[in-house]
Amino acid sequence: MATLKDVAAKSGVTVTTVSRVLNNRGYISGETRDKVYAAMKELNYQPNEIARSLSKQKNNSIGIIVPHIEHPYFARLIGYLEREAANRNYKIMICNSHAKFEKEIDYLEMFQSHRVTGIILCSRSVDIGKFISLNIPVVSIERPVDVGTTSVECDNYQGGVLAAEHLIASGCKHLVHFSGIENEAMPADARCKGFVNVCEDRNIPHKEVECKADNYLNMEYHSLIESVLLENPEVDGIFASSDLIAAQVIQVARKMNIHVPTNLKIVGFDDVNIASLASPTITTIHQPIKEMAKEAINCLIKCAEDHVVPSRIQLPVTLVKRETT
Amino acid sequence: MATLKDVAAKSGVTVTTVSRVLNNRGYISGETRDKVYAAMKELNYQPNEIARSLSKQKNNSIGIIVPHIEHPYFARLIGYLEREAANRNYKIMICNSHAKFEKEIDYLEMFQSHRVTGIILCSRSVDIGKFISLNIPVVSIERPVDVGTTSVECDNYQGGVLAAEHLIASGCKHLVHFSGIENEAMPADARCKGFVNVCEDRNIPHKEVECKADNYLNMEYHSLIESVLLENPEVDGIFASSDLIAAQVIQVARKMNIHVPTNLKIVGFDDVNIASLASPTITTIHQPIKEMAKEAINCLIKCAEDHVVPSRIQLPVTLVKRETT
Repeated sequence: MATLKDVAAKSGVTVTTVSRVLNNRGYISGETRDKVYAAMKELNYQPNEIARSLSKQKNNSIGIIVPHIEHPYFARLIGYLEREAANRNYKIMICNSHAKFEKEIDYLEMFQSHRVTGIILCSRSVDIGKFISLNIPVVSIERPVDVGTTSVECDNYQGGVLAAEHLIASGCKHLVHFSGIENEAMPADARCKGFVNVCEDRNIPHKEVECKADNYLNMEYHSLIESVLLENPEVDGIFASSDLIAAQVIQVARKMNIHVPTNLKIVGFDDVNIASLASPTITTIHQPIKEMAKEAINCLIKCAEDHVVPSRIQLPVTLVKRETT
Repeated sequence: MATLKDVAAKSGVTVTTVSRVLNNRGYISGETRDKVYAAMKELNYQPNEIARSLSKQKNNSIGIIVPHIEHPYFARLIGYLEREAANRNYKIMICNSHAKFEKEIDYLEMFQSHRVTGIILCSRSVDIGKFISLNIPVVSIERPVDVGTTSVECDNYQGGVLAAEHLIASGCKHLVHFSGIENEAMPADARCKGFVNVCEDRNIPHKEVECKADNYLNMEYHSLIESVLLENPEVDGIFASSDLIAAQVIQVARKMNIHVPTNLKIVGFDDVNIASLASPTITTIHQPIKEMAKEAINCLIKCAEDHVVPSRIQLPVTLVKRETT
């Protein structure tokens, strides 16, 4: 592999000059610059990014911590984060924590050792102090607002309002909401508040069912859904806090011979693949995941460049009507 | 942040000794080692991985190129690759190429500059020469076998055989197979061969429909499926080369009032989330994605350590019966 020395020899300048061209430092004439670039090209010279980042003490990479790469929401989010990062010439390093606290800490330390530019936190880790002591930008997506540099969320409250209003407008009289995970305070909890407020305003009987952490981690809600439908046969409208849950409501209804949407209407949340791949397709609250990813990457890079960034960014949601209502 | 010097001062040894402890080089007494570790712990010293990898010219990271993070198959594959890599103390860096050739080349150069230990290639890039000239291990998953160090595949031919046999055993008389992408030679094409051979052996009329690259990239097959079902109303069994296609066959059948499985039976391929989340759930050919990820990471690390590794690894598939048959 060609070295800096080879490039210098080929272009007839000193190694220092080649290094200046590479690092865009000091005055270099256009002619010299052209000669150096020509030599690099001819020799197929690859600057050693490890050495370069050592001198800059930065890695041009962004660490991302998710609980669940395979969950359709995180799969979509990571896709957009990667795309936005690549547009800005950053690479992403991914930690799939499986919501295991120790794994998140391990990865955090690794990210720190590797001098990542910043961290995007989409997981539910609870040791907030650990993040703050890192002294690198931490942008959270759909996490409690008191963590890190910037918190990016969608308007969860409005999502709950839209879902309840749509179910009621579609003729539902008895609503159930499958909400977030018990004993974990998350921005997504506001979906439940929006839902409850609308139901109370309109005098619609409603029930909120909290899911267990195990449901979330195993992406498995069938028996929970079945027991709720058996115990509440009057229920004719369900607001599920994810499309993944909504897809399983369809499956349970099918098994119990409850026709969707005639006898049971369903609204999901997220608007990920599964919403349009299910049969029937799922009416859902669209989370602007692409825009959230863009804001997150942008804030993180800005913060790393010492600009002032917002501490909280909230993006609007919309209702997407499909076949379950 | 504490430096090597601080650790040396604290433990009363030279910087060289601390460095030896860190890098596990040369003779160091147990007592000295304990003193150095105690000082590191007390000072919360973080070795600078960038500097360490510079001296080793390796990064302890693995580059992964996929066409599609969001496709349920790749989402699951990446999940397992990350888990296996983490078990071996490697990080992953992900390129989502959207099957864009230029983006793959950019990422390859970036991976090379960052001295990744190796590359796992799950994409359809065609410039094979570019990979070979890299001089780092390249393990491909479900890619043509003449690329790189090791090619990891499932037994695609056997998958096609199992699918056709199961549809015929379930009473189907007219079969259709939605196969790979036209004009692209891929290991997955063997699914079609297995399917066709069984149909011909049993004298079952059959039709193979190749998908367009656009179908694959946009994950959108509805109009293709609809036109095939309209033109071939006698069809009563479909073998789809992915669960994603199978889920869309269910949707089109629903729209056309064709009952699944009574009047149309469907077998998918992959056994990813969507297969168990669809309604009805999808009978499918289980690809051992977890084991394939494990073999890929293992070969790549072994190869980087100059061990001889297999050039091709094929893992068995199984049929998982669910509600579409």
